Amino acid sequence: MTALDPNLAQRLKDVVGPKGWSEEPNDIAPHLVELRGRWLGQTPLLLKPSATLEVARILALCNETRTPIVPQGGNTGLVGGQIPTRGEVLLSLERMNRIRSVNPEENLLVAEAGVVLKHAQAAADAVQRLFPLSLGAEGSCTIGGNVSTNAGGVNVLRYGMMRDLVLGLEVVLADGRVLDLLRGLKKDNTGYDLKQLFIGAEGTLGIVTAAMLRLFPKPAGYATAVAAISNVSVAVELLNRLQHATGSQVTAFELMQRESLDLVTKHIVDTMNPLPDWRGWTVLIEVSNPAAFDATDALQEALAQAMDQGLVADAVFAKSERDRAAFWRLRETLPEAHRLDGATIANDISVPLSRIAEFLAAADAAIRAALPSARSFAFGHVGDGNLHYAIKAPGNDAALLAARAALELIVAEQTAKLNGSISAEHGLGLAKNESIARYKSAAELDLMRALKRTLDPNNILNPGKLLPPD
Amino acid sequence: MTALDPNLAQRLKDVVGPKGWSEEPNDIAPHLVELRGRWLGQTPLLLKPSATLEVARILALCNETRTPIVPQGGNTGLVGGQIPTRGEVLLSLERMNRIRSVNPEENLLVAEAGVVLKHAQAAADAVQRLFPLSLGAEGSCTIGGNVSTNAGGVNVLRYGMMRDLVLGLEVVLADGRVLDLLRGLKKDNTGYDLKQLFIGAEGTLGIVTAAMLRLFPKPAGYATAVAAISNVSVAVELLNRLQHATGSQVTAFELMQRESLDLVTKHIVDTMNPLPDWRGWTVLIEVSNPAAFDATDALQEALAQAMDQGLVADAVFAKSERDRAAFWRLRETLPEAHRLDGATIANDISVPLSRIAEFLAAADAAIRAALPSARSFAFGHVGDGNLHYAIKAPGNDAALLAARAALELIVAEQTAKLNGSISAEHGLGLAKNESIARYKSAAELDLMRALKRTLDPNNILNPGKLLPPD
Repeated sequence: MTALDPNLAQRLKDVVGPKGWSEEPNDIAPHLVELRGRWLGQTPLLLKPSATLEVARILALCNETRTPIVPQGGNTGLVGGQIPTRGEVLLSLERMNRIRSVNPEENLLVAEAGVVLKHAQAAADAVQRLFPLSLGAEGSCTIGGNVSTNAGGVNVLRYGMMRDLVLGLEVVLADGRVLDLLRGLKKDNTGYDLKQLFIGAEGTLGIVTAAMLRLFPKPAGYATAVAAISNVSVAVELLNRLQHATGSQVTAFELMQRESLDLVTKHIVDTMNPLPDWRGWTVLIEVSNPAAFDATDALQEALAQAMDQGLVADAVFAKSERDRAAFWRLRETLPEAHRLDGATIANDISVPLSRIAEFLAAADAAIRAALPSARSFAFGHVGDGNLHYAIKAPGNDAALLAARAALELIVAEQTAKLNGSISAEHGLGLAKNESIARYKSAAELDLMRALKRTLDPNNILNPGKLLPPD
Repeated sequence: MTALDPNLAQRLKDVVGPKGWSEEPNDIAPHLVELRGRWLGQTPLLLKPSATLEVARILALCNETRTPIVPQGGNTGLVGGQIPTRGEVLLSLERMNRIRSVNPEENLLVAEAGVVLKHAQAAADAVQRLFPLSLGAEGSCTIGGNVSTNAGGVNVLRYGMMRDLVLGLEVVLADGRVLDLLRGLKKDNTGYDLKQLFIGAEGTLGIVTAAMLRLFPKPAGYATAVAAISNVSVAVELLNRLQHATGSQVTAFELMQRESLDLVTKHIVDTMNPLPDWRGWTVLIEVSNPAAFDATDALQEALAQAMDQGLVADAVFAKSERDRAAFWRLRETLPEAHRLDGATIANDISVPLSRIAEFLAAADAAIRAALPSARSFAFGHVGDGNLHYAIKAPGNDAALLAARAALELIVAEQTAKLNGSISAEHGLGLAKNESIARYKSAAELDLMRALKRTLDPNNILNPGKLLPPD
């Protein structure tokens, strides 16, 4: 770890005041390791500013002194983007946790970067509105991280990614200047839409300090079902039919595999497979009913029709909020069940909707050819073409982990062949910033690097993340 | 006009072949003047490439020789962005008019830049899908222009601006390299989302040659009404109520003023005001019904309730497709009626929804103070906060035009006071690229200029447009 100049350290501490920093290893430790334990960071100083102007002064000092700095929200990222692996100063936004305003009439909410997603959801709910971003880590991930990773989750099908939910941003640039783009305007064609630069940029082009978020009418209720599908290749057709039948009210369409559900019921308490006799693929389907229109009957009818035509083998509807929670618990605990059952190599890919089945067949075959004991488990937001694709080798963890690089390469190659993405929603961070260079054109990589040089000429903002090494 | 080096001219002609260029004044003339006649361009050479690689070679040559070039689509822009006012080479994308693919299963369509918007709509319709971008110029504007200006129109409320409808782009960079971002992926978090740079950039950062567009289920039908509202300040509340009542199926919510409707019925044949006794504001409301759900009754009920509570004074429903067309004709011919009734100073602004009434009161007062004979006419997409705000001075056109700069400044200042935008959907071009400098922070302007330098270091792409002069 590079030692921090004591004079600079003191100036940084002065900016944030006594509550705003720590050098205590015990305070710092939880910020240095991420969920899966793949990267371990180190830092000479943890800064916890409480206001945008403090972030501005910190960056101005860091930029002047060429001091690298890593921003961190809820530390729930899965690709290492938030970990100071090179001994950088660590900037936690956790104290910037105010909801600055809620405006139900205009369907807008302004949250600081450190607001936990669940709290933003609750603030919307309190005024009878929905903030639709929803994902496994919502109890600890933060709005700043959601913006910086362009978070996805289970409602993308209907409401889009975080990019689609951000109407304005406040960003501190590398040199400490504050870019105030918190305009509450749905339409504004006055030049380049600068906020787009910072969404999904993983803190490499600026530090997001606040976001103006779009709110939606709160659904009046939900219709939730688990359906057994005859074959993964019918999933897209089924989704199109259900969208047609329900007036595009389907908000979630999540693929699950029998083998994964078995791991859930084995490892997670209070779980039950509602289709215990079905050996094949299932989808968790949810329709959000607007106040004006209950699509439950339409969903039931469309599923019955799909059953008659052989697309769906069986379906179970949630009869209560408790059933609904139980169905969702299966989906939400699935990654944890995989982890609890031994080593997992997780992949987060997307392919064009119509090629999902093709991907699964080709990737599975290639993986087994490379490591005969390996098994793949696909699950996730299939309505968006996004698969979480986990590789395991039951009873053979050491071999699996030894083959990590080869297996990840196989998944990446199969994805690229079908014009897919090797990171549908998790980002690049440290996990995929090298491999991405294989799949992007020289023009694209050059332009990415040029943007980085333009916005962060001294390379102080989350250096070494997202961009491939030169 | 700067003469073009004959050797360069010949090389450019060789790239596009005999059908791909013209120096004939008669061919060129229609490309040099825009609808309102505010800018007159000149060009030594009109190029009409038929393929992306031709555009690439043209830009490589222009970049090498520092030759400025102006891209043009359907020449329907209202801010002069498409006019070669400095004698630049003119690049018309009109021959790049192929629909490359239509994929109803994935709800995607790939159109080249020169495809006329109406043709893209028709290609979607032919496979029972909707491409929802819709605006007055749709019979002649093109997809490339729609992307480059981030076009809006009458369906933004439900489907968003062009930015929300673009899933992928193909762009030729200033140096002639082709950036192929035509990936059909709804989710792809592999680094900076480069396509965002070119949407709404008015051809100053690259030339868009093709776009992958999102399609939607085709509405099964429409419910269309014209409602008399008691006061412009109730418009937002009425919209929120109608959205709640119809399950957010309201696709258009267009404000019109009695004085404007009178100009329409005076100047445009076959038009009739369906609420002839109402002196105040009206809104044109349209709900798009999905196959699953007819929201007509819900809309009627909600309007009846709003009438009981005094928000709405009267309402007329379209009883046939012919009625519907007649209602829309009022709205669509409104700008033309203004033009036919003498000089108009047109403004395209947006303010936060809740401040529309405040804006109208303050702007009207300020305008009359500056020019007592002036009258203002507001109309447009009020559901998005977007007002087309026309100033006229009946019988006093010379005074109006003489006061143009002062009046435009008043509108801009009143807009800025309320945190609004001086160009909600038309862009900056040559009309507002200078004035925008007053309303953007130094940080924002610097970043815009830095992006321009990064992507177009020789300043050959539509120079002098969008960005304020240095």
